[in-house]
Amino acid sequence: MSRSIFKRLVTVDEALNALKGHVKPLPLGIEEVKITETYGRILGEDIVAKIDLPPFSRAIVDGYAVRAIATSFASEVNPVKFKVVGRVYAGEGSSLEIKEKECIEIDTGAILPRGADAVVRVEDTSIDGDYAIIHSSLGKGSGVATMGSDVYNGQLVMEKGEGLTAEKIGALAGLGYGRIKVFLRPRVAIFSTGNELLEPGLELSPSKIYDVNQYSIGALVQSSGCIPIYLGVKIDNFEEIRGAIVEGLNCADAIVMSGGTSAGVSDLAYKVFEGLGSPGLIVHGIAAKPGKPTILAAIGDKPIFGLPGFPVSALTMYYLIVDPFLRSISGKKLETRKTLKSGLATRHISERGRREYLPVFLKRSEKGLVAVPILGGSGAIASLCSADGIVEIPENIELIEKDERVKVRLFPQVKVADLVMVGDPSPVSQLVLSELRRSGVRVRSEFRGLEHGLALIRSETADLLVACTPEDERALNLYDFPSKIAKIGSFKMDMVWAFYGEGALSSGSTLVLPKIGSGLRAHAEDRIRKMAKDFKVIEVWSYDAAVDQILNRRDIVALLPLRMAKKYGLGFVEAFPTSVNYLAYERLLSTRVGKRLLRIMKSEDFRSALAPI
Amino acid sequence: MSRSIFKRLVTVDEALNALKGHVKPLPLGIEEVKITETYGRILGEDIVAKIDLPPFSRAIVDGYAVRAIATSFASEVNPVKFKVVGRVYAGEGSSLEIKEKECIEIDTGAILPRGADAVVRVEDTSIDGDYAIIHSSLGKGSGVATMGSDVYNGQLVMEKGEGLTAEKIGALAGLGYGRIKVFLRPRVAIFSTGNELLEPGLELSPSKIYDVNQYSIGALVQSSGCIPIYLGVKIDNFEEIRGAIVEGLNCADAIVMSGGTSAGVSDLAYKVFEGLGSPGLIVHGIAAKPGKPTILAAIGDKPIFGLPGFPVSALTMYYLIVDPFLRSISGKKLETRKTLKSGLATRHISERGRREYLPVFLKRSEKGLVAVPILGGSGAIASLCSADGIVEIPENIELIEKDERVKVRLFPQVKVADLVMVGDPSPVSQLVLSELRRSGVRVRSEFRGLEHGLALIRSETADLLVACTPEDERALNLYDFPSKIAKIGSFKMDMVWAFYGEGALSSGSTLVLPKIGSGLRAHAEDRIRKMAKDFKVIEVWSYDAAVDQILNRRDIVALLPLRMAKKYGLGFVEAFPTSVNYLAYERLLSTRVGKRLLRIMKSEDFRSALAPI
Repeated sequence: MSRSIFKRLVTVDEALNALKGHVKPLPLGIEEVKITETYGRILGEDIVAKIDLPPFSRAIVDGYAVRAIATSFASEVNPVKFKVVGRVYAGEGSSLEIKEKECIEIDTGAILPRGADAVVRVEDTSIDGDYAIIHSSLGKGSGVATMGSDVYNGQLVMEKGEGLTAEKIGALAGLGYGRIKVFLRPRVAIFSTGNELLEPGLELSPSKIYDVNQYSIGALVQSSGCIPIYLGVKIDNFEEIRGAIVEGLNCADAIVMSGGTSAGVSDLAYKVFEGLGSPGLIVHGIAAKPGKPTILAAIGDKPIFGLPGFPVSALTMYYLIVDPFLRSISGKKLETRKTLKSGLATRHISERGRREYLPVFLKRSEKGLVAVPILGGSGAIASLCSADGIVEIPENIELIEKDERVKVRLFPQVKVADLVMVGDPSPVSQLVLSELRRSGVRVRSEFRGLEHGLALIRSETADLLVACTPEDERALNLYDFPSKIAKIGSFKMDMVWAFYGEGALSSGSTLVLPKIGSGLRAHAEDRIRKMAKDFKVIEVWSYDAAVDQILNRRDIVALLPLRMAKKYGLGFVEAFPTSVNYLAYERLLSTRVGKRLLRIMKSEDFRSALAPI
Repeated sequence: MSRSIFKRLVTVDEALNALKGHVKPLPLGIEEVKITETYGRILGEDIVAKIDLPPFSRAIVDGYAVRAIATSFASEVNPVKFKVVGRVYAGEGSSLEIKEKECIEIDTGAILPRGADAVVRVEDTSIDGDYAIIHSSLGKGSGVATMGSDVYNGQLVMEKGEGLTAEKIGALAGLGYGRIKVFLRPRVAIFSTGNELLEPGLELSPSKIYDVNQYSIGALVQSSGCIPIYLGVKIDNFEEIRGAIVEGLNCADAIVMSGGTSAGVSDLAYKVFEGLGSPGLIVHGIAAKPGKPTILAAIGDKPIFGLPGFPVSALTMYYLIVDPFLRSISGKKLETRKTLKSGLATRHISERGRREYLPVFLKRSEKGLVAVPILGGSGAIASLCSADGIVEIPENIELIEKDERVKVRLFPQVKVADLVMVGDPSPVSQLVLSELRRSGVRVRSEFRGLEHGLALIRSETADLLVACTPEDERALNLYDFPSKIAKIGSFKMDMVWAFYGEGALSSGSTLVLPKIGSGLRAHAEDRIRKMAKDFKVIEVWSYDAAVDQILNRRDIVALLPLRMAKKYGLGFVEAFPTSVNYLAYERLLSTRVGKRLLRIMKSEDFRSALAPI
């Protein structure tokens, strides 16, 4: 075991520096590739021009090459005549030379004849036999691109480490480079460990989950300029993990592995690198939330990154540690990460002693942009899809107040939300959503029931709340809405008890309820008890999931909108009518988004789309 | 010929709409690819989750699964005992169930046993035989990720047209997608026409230039999500161009061609599409500067873009017309282009009646960001490498005043300059430059001589001016510097007359002078006339170019710094000592960049690096 192992948790910077102490973060080498293969690659040499660009002084208009001085007194009333003594075409050499009162017909791109220092546009001349007549005076250099005026011989045009964009590739072509030296792209072996992990595409079995990290890390590795090599899912034991490390060392320049959610690499870290070469294990544990069980190791000059199993933790540690290191060895200049100051949308309590990295999304509000924490937990990958960046909370900060300014490290793609929509699931909302999106409004939505939505509305994280209630004017009074919240629209939705084919309601079967507001839920349970006793209740997150349950298990009854029961051809009996209510802060109504929302909800098209099938 | 041809120049928007009237800008189709091949691709289907994520309620810590209610009164002084009735591992199913005062040992990631609704961390328990002792009360759901809490069955997770990022690929993996439907990437055939064009990599011959557009457009096509097919350089005649179009129609979904600087496609446009199919030519000429000779055509459902030959014009028209169209057919959602308001650094006069697209770079100044026009002309590709965006000047605007606010459409990569350095070329400046860059200062430099630099300093476009003069305190007095310009540093540089091997100065040979200030040039010519008569003078842009001249042609003499003559082993005789002077606005010195500059110029390391070899 190497003596360099830290006995304590280290910070992200300490960890990265410790690794750099063992493995130099330098490019692996150079390869020469055809210019057509260079888009997105990293230039591996300084480019000092060996020619002038343009390589000769040339016409940039079609016209006549002249000596500018000879046009000095030309004007509309006093035109000057030049004898046409020849013609030069683009791409052809010419030994022609002109004298004071002569000119030569010339194409755009053609070499400027000796003696000439300007080109007059053909539109600005007239022809009289062998003579071109010029009506205005020209400055020296007019209509001409001088040799070397774009790039001069000896000019440092580009530097090693620059990413090759379209403009740069064009410039390299113009300078005559048919092949270009670029840095080698490091190969990075990737695997996941965890007894509960399954490769996506296989059938899901109980107690298993699909592996996420191998694929998200594979994509990240490409964004860092490297080539991923996927080694698969490994069982959490010494032989499998060690085998994968040996395989990775053989086929790649670096390894990124991640534990499942179970013990994994982190627990085996002290043993698994032993005897493979020095330095072995370097860092075991990082003082960061998420990301604590991160390990760093190296065998020879090959770095090994062991990331936590939880997807959000793995991605966060990738951005902070793996990406900067892989960029260095891929030759990319380190970009200063883009940051933005904004208010935090909600009060946030952090753990003392560990640096916290909090994923957020950005939302437009009347106070400008606000950063809204994404609190899916570190296992929640889908929630992270909507993140715009990360807020870093130092070790000594325990509390950030609502609206306190924080620094957001932005992800490459930022999409600021115009509207956040929450509450009960409903087919009506799907229609509202797609109409809003069609008109260019960026909406984030999360339909996790009325209680969840109410909390987000109270914290002003969300703007629009969907509340399903029994069809009763007073139903909304049961809830404690913040002041300044108004009902902005309401739609009737008939609900039914739906079941498979001829199946019917009977005591002892299972009742499936989508996550709906407590008022509606109580109402539903109340009603069903009048029809049969002893229902066992399962909650699901959406009406679609309820339909799935009916189609898969036949002994159940689910509360569904009439439209959906009809759509899937289910048997049903009438339950009760409900109202789908839309509630928002009054200030929303005076905004562009609010006005669009009202217009959509009032439109004839929209109302007719909602009519029962 | 189609009746849809415009008889007048059209605007960019009219042109794009005319094309869309003939060719629907819709994706070409869908393919299903392995998840590992999806990075950067465009999602071709809406993703509605078919499972819950997590698929079951699971532990997110290692510990003991309990009923939360049974811990209600647990505290440090009043611990509660739970009987351990079993163990569940991650990845394993379990039929275990717990009752009120029982618990089950559980791994992170393992399925929550029936009856349990919370998991207490192993760190927060102690063990007493068959019992786990709990010292604090737990809330329901503590230590647990509930089934469906990340994604719920039926949730619309992603929409058709989204670009696949690492996070999204991870979410798709988590939902079990091993293969993913993505939009087909359109194949785009590219060729250039022009008798003067040469493929890069071949030897440059007189009157020829290297083809730029095929390669810059090839890279742009990739950035628009398409696959480029390079058809090569074509001669400017009907058969060649028509042949290339037919080839492109056979092998690709779209064609992007560009004229050389000579006549090219634009002149043949009326004939070359005839008889290939309808609609043929659609737009011939756009009211834009640069970009007037742009043509649009289509054969069947394949669009054909004919761009101008000048590289800057071609790129500008690509960004405005080709990119939006190709993005649509590649399935990408149109991103709203990023824009920025800033002051224009210099007065700019535009042509009435044509919309002008002016490439600019961004520079930090005490007034905030300013946009500096890049005036390399439309042939200048290298100048465009440093552009950060384009300012659009409407048809009816003839004049933009200095500091007037303009809207800059930003390119994908923006690098704001901290310092712009201009003036005479000098090896000293190369050292200053690399030291500045090493310390993280972004410098743009253009060493095109003192007169050129002086103009840029006067317009406040540049910050730092390099002036080479004879070593004489009064030499700088000859120049008309703006007030508030101060000399901030000065270095001695010995100059020599350099020549090949034993060659010597003689009348009638050629004298090569780098682009140096008029004072120095007069001084140099003066001196050489004292030694020999009838020198013919050639100007080059850099000392490197002068060395090239000496090594290639032996009958010349060049004015070079002593260091360079020695470095290349050239013969030389002493010429005269010069001063390399650095001048800047006084306000620069109080900035971070100015202070760093002064520190570099005063450093011991720097002075010693300048000592003669």
